[in-house]
Amino acid sequence: MKIYRYPTKDTWFDLVKRPVLEQQEISALIAGIFKEVQSNGDQALIEFNKKFDKADTQSIKITEAEIEIAENQISDDLKKAIQEAKENISKFHSSQISDISKIETTKGVVCWRENRAVESVGIYIPGGTAPLFSTVLMLAVPANLAGCKEIVLCTPPDKNGNINPAILYTAKLCGITKIFKTGGAQAIAAMTLGTESVPRVYKIFGPGNQFVVAAKEYAQRYGVAIDMPAGPSEVLVIADENAIPEFCAADLLSQAEHGSDSQVVFLTTSLKVLNETISAVDQQIKDLPRNEMAGKSLENSNFIVLNSLEEALEFSNLYAPEHLILAISDFEKYIPMVQNAGSVFLGNYSCESAGDYASGTNHTLPTNAYAKNYSGVSLDSFVKKITFQHLSKEGLQNLGKTIEIMAEAEGLLAHKNAVSIRLKS
Amino acid sequence: MKIYRYPTKDTWFDLVKRPVLEQQEISALIAGIFKEVQSNGDQALIEFNKKFDKADTQSIKITEAEIEIAENQISDDLKKAIQEAKENISKFHSSQISDISKIETTKGVVCWRENRAVESVGIYIPGGTAPLFSTVLMLAVPANLAGCKEIVLCTPPDKNGNINPAILYTAKLCGITKIFKTGGAQAIAAMTLGTESVPRVYKIFGPGNQFVVAAKEYAQRYGVAIDMPAGPSEVLVIADENAIPEFCAADLLSQAEHGSDSQVVFLTTSLKVLNETISAVDQQIKDLPRNEMAGKSLENSNFIVLNSLEEALEFSNLYAPEHLILAISDFEKYIPMVQNAGSVFLGNYSCESAGDYASGTNHTLPTNAYAKNYSGVSLDSFVKKITFQHLSKEGLQNLGKTIEIMAEAEGLLAHKNAVSIRLKS
Repeated sequence: MKIYRYPTKDTWFDLVKRPVLEQQEISALIAGIFKEVQSNGDQALIEFNKKFDKADTQSIKITEAEIEIAENQISDDLKKAIQEAKENISKFHSSQISDISKIETTKGVVCWRENRAVESVGIYIPGGTAPLFSTVLMLAVPANLAGCKEIVLCTPPDKNGNINPAILYTAKLCGITKIFKTGGAQAIAAMTLGTESVPRVYKIFGPGNQFVVAAKEYAQRYGVAIDMPAGPSEVLVIADENAIPEFCAADLLSQAEHGSDSQVVFLTTSLKVLNETISAVDQQIKDLPRNEMAGKSLENSNFIVLNSLEEALEFSNLYAPEHLILAISDFEKYIPMVQNAGSVFLGNYSCESAGDYASGTNHTLPTNAYAKNYSGVSLDSFVKKITFQHLSKEGLQNLGKTIEIMAEAEGLLAHKNAVSIRLKS
Repeated sequence: MKIYRYPTKDTWFDLVKRPVLEQQEISALIAGIFKEVQSNGDQALIEFNKKFDKADTQSIKITEAEIEIAENQISDDLKKAIQEAKENISKFHSSQISDISKIETTKGVVCWRENRAVESVGIYIPGGTAPLFSTVLMLAVPANLAGCKEIVLCTPPDKNGNINPAILYTAKLCGITKIFKTGGAQAIAAMTLGTESVPRVYKIFGPGNQFVVAAKEYAQRYGVAIDMPAGPSEVLVIADENAIPEFCAADLLSQAEHGSDSQVVFLTTSLKVLNETISAVDQQIKDLPRNEMAGKSLENSNFIVLNSLEEALEFSNLYAPEHLILAISDFEKYIPMVQNAGSVFLGNYSCESAGDYASGTNHTLPTNAYAKNYSGVSLDSFVKKITFQHLSKEGLQNLGKTIEIMAEAEGLLAHKNAVSIRLKS
């Protein structure tokens, strides 16, 4: 880890920089995969399972029998935990349903917005080192609440052609029936273009490796929307002199274990807390099964002592972290200073993993400084807000002159005429 | 225009297709412009003004003196109209400010969202055939309401190096002080990269030609967000047997005059209304100054008779129009059937130009079928919604076990440990 003591502000710009990711030129590869899926549909997906996942899959659609088997493989404790998390995520995302509020802007002119679900959405769940059934909850729960008619889930099979049972159980719990064994860029291509089995969707959500990220970007050429741009996961912890170093260390490590490219930043106003947190990290990492990954991530991480909490917030806003933990006694005071962050965890008992799994907030959040201009996934991500307006005859009489003058000044006479012809009638 | 009588549903898919736009390969040109702006800053912008806009501009920043001159060039009637429109747009967009709603998902676990403005935003206003001062209102008013600290406006100069006075007046009225004479891809590059004069922004809004559209897409590689993907403007009108053909014709023409690539669709259940609307179009187009553009647009437009209003709504949802006019007596009944549209105009007196200028709704809307997965610009476009959560010690005791079980099942032991270490303490 890299330690900085009271760095001057002119050095901050370098300290908040993310490592530049190697941009492999994979666009030709992605285009090839899309072409293959477009031409050969399901058969292409089966071939790609063989090629990329070393899996022999006769059919890519998950059967009810497979889901039933999965259900029996999950412990009751895990089922109960997933159900409780689902309940909390439902509660929080339900609170994001907005009422219709009709506004009379001029007498006789009434305007409002109504939500309509994105009709068909796709959820991508990666394979790899962690079976992210929690991400199924984070995406399927708001999709259901929004009223999406069709929810499609794609995830790669393991070498035996199976899907992790917790993913299948969670998908079933969320009422998803269209689950497909396909991963990587080919899964994104299938949801973008449609195949015999996989329905075409309007918006694709979910994390993935560089191929998935590139494919989601490529999919946008076909009119598909995506949740947000992607980057490695991040946490920034701000600790005052009362913070508990063991807790801070545990939070930093829970981010670092995601992968060797995970970003971890620790800011404190106390040299003592700095040193004790570093010791606690060194102590706790020993027992972690993923300590190699966590260690690599920590090598590039910044541990910084600053002069004040105000300065720390200023630094944090410049960095714009995905996750921000305020391990501060007086955190209420600092909430208004948070300008750029994905999700914020307040006080000593609000660990990031609470939000990752079960508190109710969404864990699909903007990384790579995108917290400056993007929100995390919420109910809003699954709806369009359509504006409606009604002008009575009186309304148009009240507003017509204004519209006519403006249209004429923009040189758009047919726009003016649409008013004039009505006013004359 | 193309007329279809009672087309069967299997033909609809072809009828809702937009013309495929010629994709000129301009990415090398755009990359070159970005490079030039990055290297030479303001001087590059001055050179591009000479090259592309035939304008000799000593400096690109608009001075206060220029704004004062502009103010004197605008009629009082136009000023009053712009002020009234601004007031309505403010009223409607103010209603989109959401309250903070704290949810206790589990006892001791409280979650909520707070809005934070995107700190710095850029507004692009095209030059060309119409001086779109109305778009200044549509973007600057919500930016101000959201609390954006910095609002930058770029627009190309005319051959004399001047900006249309209505644009300058409207910008001033909205409190924008950073106005720059630069257009096209170079303006987008300037707001993305920053120059000596032009501040770097986090999100870029506004319409433009193919170069601007391509540059906005390219800008995203630098972490900048954009309002939405672009395409030619569109209207779809649904008229029942009581609709007034002259009004329908005026609305269709007000869309057609935008440009030869504008999309106009007319659906009706009445052959009589169809024929009379076509006659009215032929009649009204004669007097329009932009009738050449409107005529070209109408050549490719579809006029369709369908069996029922339900069928018309179904067709409209498949098309997903930017603007939808329901010229239907009983429009209330059909509102719930609207699934995909940008903005909807209800009844005989709600002409599209009301929403284009002054009713209060935003006119920056999804085109090219993007109404299936995108909303129009609103206050939401200028804020991020940050989630916050606070777990008390009791809260973590209540939820901790659930988090531990889920983290362990995903193989993320450091995530589990962040809970365990707190529960043990």
